[in-house]
Amino acid sequence: MANRSCIIRLSRYKNALNRLKTLNFVRVFSDNLADAAGVTAAQVRKDFSLFGITGNRRGGYKVDELSDQLNKILGKDQLQEVVVIGMGNIGKALFHYGGLEKSGIKVAAGFDIDPVKFDRDSSQPVLPLEGLVDFVRGHNIVLGVIAVPDYAAQQVLELMLSAGIRGVLNFAPICLKAPEGCIVNNINLESELENLIYFVNALEDGK
Amino acid sequence: MANRSCIIRLSRYKNALNRLKTLNFVRVFSDNLADAAGVTAAQVRKDFSLFGITGNRRGGYKVDELSDQLNKILGKDQLQEVVVIGMGNIGKALFHYGGLEKSGIKVAAGFDIDPVKFDRDSSQPVLPLEGLVDFVRGHNIVLGVIAVPDYAAQQVLELMLSAGIRGVLNFAPICLKAPEGCIVNNINLESELENLIYFVNALEDGK
Repeated sequence: MANRSCIIRLSRYKNALNRLKTLNFVRVFSDNLADAAGVTAAQVRKDFSLFGITGNRRGGYKVDELSDQLNKILGKDQLQEVVVIGMGNIGKALFHYGGLEKSGIKVAAGFDIDPVKFDRDSSQPVLPLEGLVDFVRGHNIVLGVIAVPDYAAQQVLELMLSAGIRGVLNFAPICLKAPEGCIVNNINLESELENLIYFVNALEDGK
Repeated sequence: MANRSCIIRLSRYKNALNRLKTLNFVRVFSDNLADAAGVTAAQVRKDFSLFGITGNRRGGYKVDELSDQLNKILGKDQLQEVVVIGMGNIGKALFHYGGLEKSGIKVAAGFDIDPVKFDRDSSQPVLPLEGLVDFVRGHNIVLGVIAVPDYAAQQVLELMLSAGIRGVLNFAPICLKAPEGCIVNNINLESELENLIYFVNALEDGK
């Protein structure tokens, strides 16, 4: 079974392949992908072999074929719909982030508790939180993003799970735990910055 | 030397401690922090021992003392200034994200190349990118966030490094490599979502 880091690397290979395609590249070598993803060529081949992807004798891959294989593994051969809960700064940014559409991920709707933020009639609506369960079930959505304040996050998570959501990206500054049968990835911007601060300080001390 | 995951956990312990403080807790046990951070109590003690932090015989810690120690390790005993490059959706969200100020991280300024976005006279200004080097040197800033399109990211990284920035959080959907003496943490929202999609699909297949 692949782990989280492996899948993150597959995403990077896939993004690099998309860029190579726009440059009309037909073949790519594990060294090229290694450079693009910041890993070793051996790692690239190991990741691929886990999914039965093999190159030719000289270690080359056809860009189109490889891209199709990675898209299939990453579930990108079909449009993935996502809901965003919480239309604050972070939620709004994700809601309007065009970069996702390009890669087959569509933000189907946003949800909030503040009536000022509602926009019911848009093709990408912002709806009252109490409509979440019906919307998610009606659209068969399994992915959601939490961008609410920390004190509301656990309750929102439970509501999402009760609606049938199985994968959650959590931006609330609190570490949410995934119950069985569900994946929660926590992204804490403050922790990421603290991480940088620590390692930058460590660099300075090491001088 | 602590690794990235360890520092992320310290951030989580520190956030949990802040919440306990508001509840007037005086003592905390490794089990409490383990629950809050989603790890085992043994992991908590191991992380602390790496930094010479020891509890009393029964494994308890004083909330205030522990909080001070963690803040010091994480460089939070002083205000940390950050610049954000790129005032698109993600950049603006970080620029206005109040959550950081609370924890001693201040976004000192934003930078863009689009004159429409400039706001020179604000206490938190948005400035032309060509002013980055002077601003960063003048304010002695070592941390920066990249929120520009992928094709501009490498060039912006080099500009930041030339200005003296040592720690970078990169939201551009491209994996940037850190030259020696500098830390780059890549956060790719698309990869994070792809990661979720993969594991949610794996859950479904396992049913």
